[in-house]
Amino acid sequence: MDRQIVAPVQPARGALRPLGLDEVQITGGFWAGRQQVNGTVSIQHCDHWETRVGWIDNFRRAAAGTLPEGRTGREFSDSDVYKMVEAMAWEVGRTGDPVLEARIGELTALIGTVQEPDGYLNTRFGRPGQGARYSDLAWGHELYCYGHLLQAAVARLRTGHDDELVAIARRAADHVCEAFGPDGIAGVCGHAEIEVALVELARATGERRYLDQAALFVERRGHGTLPDIEFGREYYQDDVPVREATVLRGHSVRALYLAAGAIDLAVDTHDDALLAAVEQQVRTTLARRTYLTGGMGSHHQDEAFGDDYELPPDRAYCETCAGVGSVMVAWRLLLASGDTAWGDVVERALFNVVAVSPAQDGRSFFYTNPLHKRVPGEPAAPDEVSQRALARLRAPWFEVSCCPTNVARTVAQLAAYLATVSDDGVQLHQYAPARIVTRLGDGSDVGLEVRTRYPDEGTVTVRVTRTPAHAWELALRVPAWARGATVDGEAVDGPVARVRRVFAVGDEVTLRLPVRPRLTVPDDRVDAVRGCVAVEKGPVVLCVESTDLPDGLQVDEIRLDLTLPVVDDPQGAVAKGLRVQQTDDAWPYRDASGPLAATGEPFAMRLVPYHSWANRGPSTMRVWIPAG
Amino acid sequence: MDRQIVAPVQPARGALRPLGLDEVQITGGFWAGRQQVNGTVSIQHCDHWETRVGWIDNFRRAAAGTLPEGRTGREFSDSDVYKMVEAMAWEVGRTGDPVLEARIGELTALIGTVQEPDGYLNTRFGRPGQGARYSDLAWGHELYCYGHLLQAAVARLRTGHDDELVAIARRAADHVCEAFGPDGIAGVCGHAEIEVALVELARATGERRYLDQAALFVERRGHGTLPDIEFGREYYQDDVPVREATVLRGHSVRALYLAAGAIDLAVDTHDDALLAAVEQQVRTTLARRTYLTGGMGSHHQDEAFGDDYELPPDRAYCETCAGVGSVMVAWRLLLASGDTAWGDVVERALFNVVAVSPAQDGRSFFYTNPLHKRVPGEPAAPDEVSQRALARLRAPWFEVSCCPTNVARTVAQLAAYLATVSDDGVQLHQYAPARIVTRLGDGSDVGLEVRTRYPDEGTVTVRVTRTPAHAWELALRVPAWARGATVDGEAVDGPVARVRRVFAVGDEVTLRLPVRPRLTVPDDRVDAVRGCVAVEKGPVVLCVESTDLPDGLQVDEIRLDLTLPVVDDPQGAVAKGLRVQQTDDAWPYRDASGPLAATGEPFAMRLVPYHSWANRGPSTMRVWIPAG
Repeated sequence: MDRQIVAPVQPARGALRPLGLDEVQITGGFWAGRQQVNGTVSIQHCDHWETRVGWIDNFRRAAAGTLPEGRTGREFSDSDVYKMVEAMAWEVGRTGDPVLEARIGELTALIGTVQEPDGYLNTRFGRPGQGARYSDLAWGHELYCYGHLLQAAVARLRTGHDDELVAIARRAADHVCEAFGPDGIAGVCGHAEIEVALVELARATGERRYLDQAALFVERRGHGTLPDIEFGREYYQDDVPVREATVLRGHSVRALYLAAGAIDLAVDTHDDALLAAVEQQVRTTLARRTYLTGGMGSHHQDEAFGDDYELPPDRAYCETCAGVGSVMVAWRLLLASGDTAWGDVVERALFNVVAVSPAQDGRSFFYTNPLHKRVPGEPAAPDEVSQRALARLRAPWFEVSCCPTNVARTVAQLAAYLATVSDDGVQLHQYAPARIVTRLGDGSDVGLEVRTRYPDEGTVTVRVTRTPAHAWELALRVPAWARGATVDGEAVDGPVARVRRVFAVGDEVTLRLPVRPRLTVPDDRVDAVRGCVAVEKGPVVLCVESTDLPDGLQVDEIRLDLTLPVVDDPQGAVAKGLRVQQTDDAWPYRDASGPLAATGEPFAMRLVPYHSWANRGPSTMRVWIPAG
Repeated sequence: MDRQIVAPVQPARGALRPLGLDEVQITGGFWAGRQQVNGTVSIQHCDHWETRVGWIDNFRRAAAGTLPEGRTGREFSDSDVYKMVEAMAWEVGRTGDPVLEARIGELTALIGTVQEPDGYLNTRFGRPGQGARYSDLAWGHELYCYGHLLQAAVARLRTGHDDELVAIARRAADHVCEAFGPDGIAGVCGHAEIEVALVELARATGERRYLDQAALFVERRGHGTLPDIEFGREYYQDDVPVREATVLRGHSVRALYLAAGAIDLAVDTHDDALLAAVEQQVRTTLARRTYLTGGMGSHHQDEAFGDDYELPPDRAYCETCAGVGSVMVAWRLLLASGDTAWGDVVERALFNVVAVSPAQDGRSFFYTNPLHKRVPGEPAAPDEVSQRALARLRAPWFEVSCCPTNVARTVAQLAAYLATVSDDGVQLHQYAPARIVTRLGDGSDVGLEVRTRYPDEGTVTVRVTRTPAHAWELALRVPAWARGATVDGEAVDGPVARVRRVFAVGDEVTLRLPVRPRLTVPDDRVDAVRGCVAVEKGPVVLCVESTDLPDGLQVDEIRLDLTLPVVDDPQGAVAKGLRVQQTDDAWPYRDASGPLAATGEPFAMRLVPYHSWANRGPSTMRVWIPAG
């Protein structure tokens, strides 16, 4: 290749080639606003808190030789520093921010002082008074922490900085290959992450041994080397070998990170059987273990996927990090297969899991993302570490604070998920105002400018700003919900609108997607929301928030009247609501022959994007509304 | 009083006087069978396991001075030995079993050797290498363990043995009064239990200081002396003072034990405000936070009540011990108020929570009791301690094994819940073949013999075997579901059938309750089972178990056809089932305008008692069935 690669994911092969941040930029709209807040507020907010709670100081203490005294945070707190550096790296790649660049340098220098001569690097293990290195693979998270260090280094390499952080990461990766190689410890980390990171570092550096080590980790898992625990070995996917599993299971973030790593490995090693196995697991997970929002994880107790169709909206866990993980997985499957329908999965998780986590001001975050809130959350104090992510609204920081930095790194690299190229065309997967300048596989330069008010409106106009003289194909993803889509006025049949011709500079192609409120019902097997409907609008799941209900109504006192259409509205939609009369406080089960709960006067019921909820004070909320 | 008191609960006052095991015996039927298995198998099974896992040996090691080395079990394992001794004590009271009596003596001697001169008694704290006494009130469970020791001693006293166990318990109680009295540690135990035990020991011994100490503990709770934790202080009811709370919340067993203690305290101190507060909390809990089975607790993570109406059947926790706790609470409210409707609550929890826990052979137990099982459980190995209570069928023993001994002590004392007396009458609350010989408040001797096949059939015949010459009242509870009940052929209006007259020996009164299958629907706010029906038959909740479905159908593939009646059947009931055609494996949310899932050929769908499920091998099961 004749150009620098600046994409977060860069497979050795695949149906489609990802674009880097140098090739595509988001220039306005929903995600540009999110990137602006992320780059100017949220990343700094993370730095502030990691400083304040001492997770950065852990490195200083390690360097000073005073640990374990004074160490703060959980066993994996190093990883949050690395994830923040990764977010900074992508943000520097996006904007060139010199303050963030300087901060990366400071943090890199600090991290470097902690690395031991053989490459080992961790503030929690290996010193007198601490556990021995790798003495607790199940819970110690040492390899998980390396994984995020490697990802940060990959971000630096991919954004043009072959710097000290990369050197540190390479030493760490070399150490991992020594310690866990064919003659080393025959174990895996309780929390997958090193796998995906090693493959990406192999891609970014050309070091084959990192890929080989990732293969060892992927193949070792599922053979019961980790201890059996209350939740079973499926908690950390050590119950069944990766290539023999049929569905994602156990801790959802661990399962998704492992799946991403296995896909990367399968692609780069031409292991089609492994790729097909993981793809099938993900498809089954989407069919049976995924919320309407794209959220994953039904259990609080073990942060895990539940059984098939066990998808309670009120007890949904839907960890923000699982949303990030599902974007990672779906994007990799898209690149590998060329099946643009994976873009639907990416889009759903971005708008309805990743986007709901940060508050509009970028200074607080949801850790879990339930689809039904029965009791208004108690606001978290703005200067308090939240112990109680579950009972509260968004919180500024958590004792386990994986989500804020995960959102930060994802939002900073978001442009890379908009488009891909093939030998003779460009594929648009996500719609946002954007500028694209790239080169097709045949070497032709192509430039595009995208104008749209998506997701509020469904018109997407693509203007050609650079083109070769010969014909090429512009392919536009048509989401599964977009029945009746047109491109340049002609009906589109199927999941992709393809325009193949000789383009001239200034040519425009206009895709129209039917972005208007639509009613969605669940499969009969999703028991927890039987008899309910949801309203979606384009890629955005809507919800009812008590803030918008008249007369102090709460969301358990309403039904949605299906006899009238749901009307479009700039803020979302308006439906006909019915008030349910519920005045008794008796045994809540009654003879089936008795009367139904009566409904009172209808009212105009506003629905707003789920990603926007809880930005106007404590409220009750529901996505699935009883149909009545 | 001129007679020995052998009732497990003996308030200082109250509308009704409980009967002791010397006054009422179960002579046949459902519960006699359960008592037989309990007394000849389950109690011995508990002794076997407590020996095997070393929880009894902990006392031996303590006496030998070798602790903490070799100590096994959790911090509260002493309590399970005490609960087992309590079960043995009630069983000896019931049957006079000399082998159990001897075993109580052995265990008492062993326990006594561990008690320190000041009365302190615990195998987990206070020795070199262990935590200091009372250094961890939140999680240490020392007071909780005393509570169960005291309850065991009360059982001995109430069954005629003022023995060494009683002396040990009094020394322990005296120590608690010293250590936690007005000038002592101003704290409470993280797990309520000492409160109810101190009141009962005060009743059994006449020691007022135990009652005063219980009052201190009840009043101290709710003021935040325990640490704030991830689940909030409501986990151990330390968020709001007992008399200010509006509903039971947090860890369900803790909440129920505390409520039982607060009721006992309120009754014996004539504190009507406290009694009314707790009664209202329980009423609200029954209206909003209780499953159809009477089970309580919607959360696995914190073993807690959920929000109002958050009652998912598949993720129901419904811990067996919470069922025991709800029986304790409802029985106390019945005695205090004379409102026989509390007998409905006792009955529901007994038949549908307590009774489902033990396997028919008495050798394995459910810890949690969900109302919907989506995946067949994996059988627990008969000689293995279960780490994984949740994923498996009943297990012989658990790492946390509170439930088996709790069931054992409850079943052994069950006869005491059948009847009460007042000044001028006898009240029957639970229906089983029984023999009652008692004395009314006015001093008259009364004898009754109850014949019935309840709960399989609804006819209850009460024969008078002894009676004074003057008129008195026989009151028979009529459950809320029993519309159309008759007594001696006359329709009964209201929750009690009262027959007041001059009885002669040989007179019979016949109550007929309409025990036949009936359809039950949930309140609109119980979202998780919207659109479903349940079938109840008398006090027994029925369920569909895949074992009974044709052609290998699972319970997520069926609907119940409401157009045909549910037919009575000796095993339970038979309804018309419909098979739902579900062949796809795609995104499980679809446009509301699309077709409904099709239903196939109808079939005869057997329903069996929920308490009997999972005795015929692994199966899927559901109580709430989609109506179609």
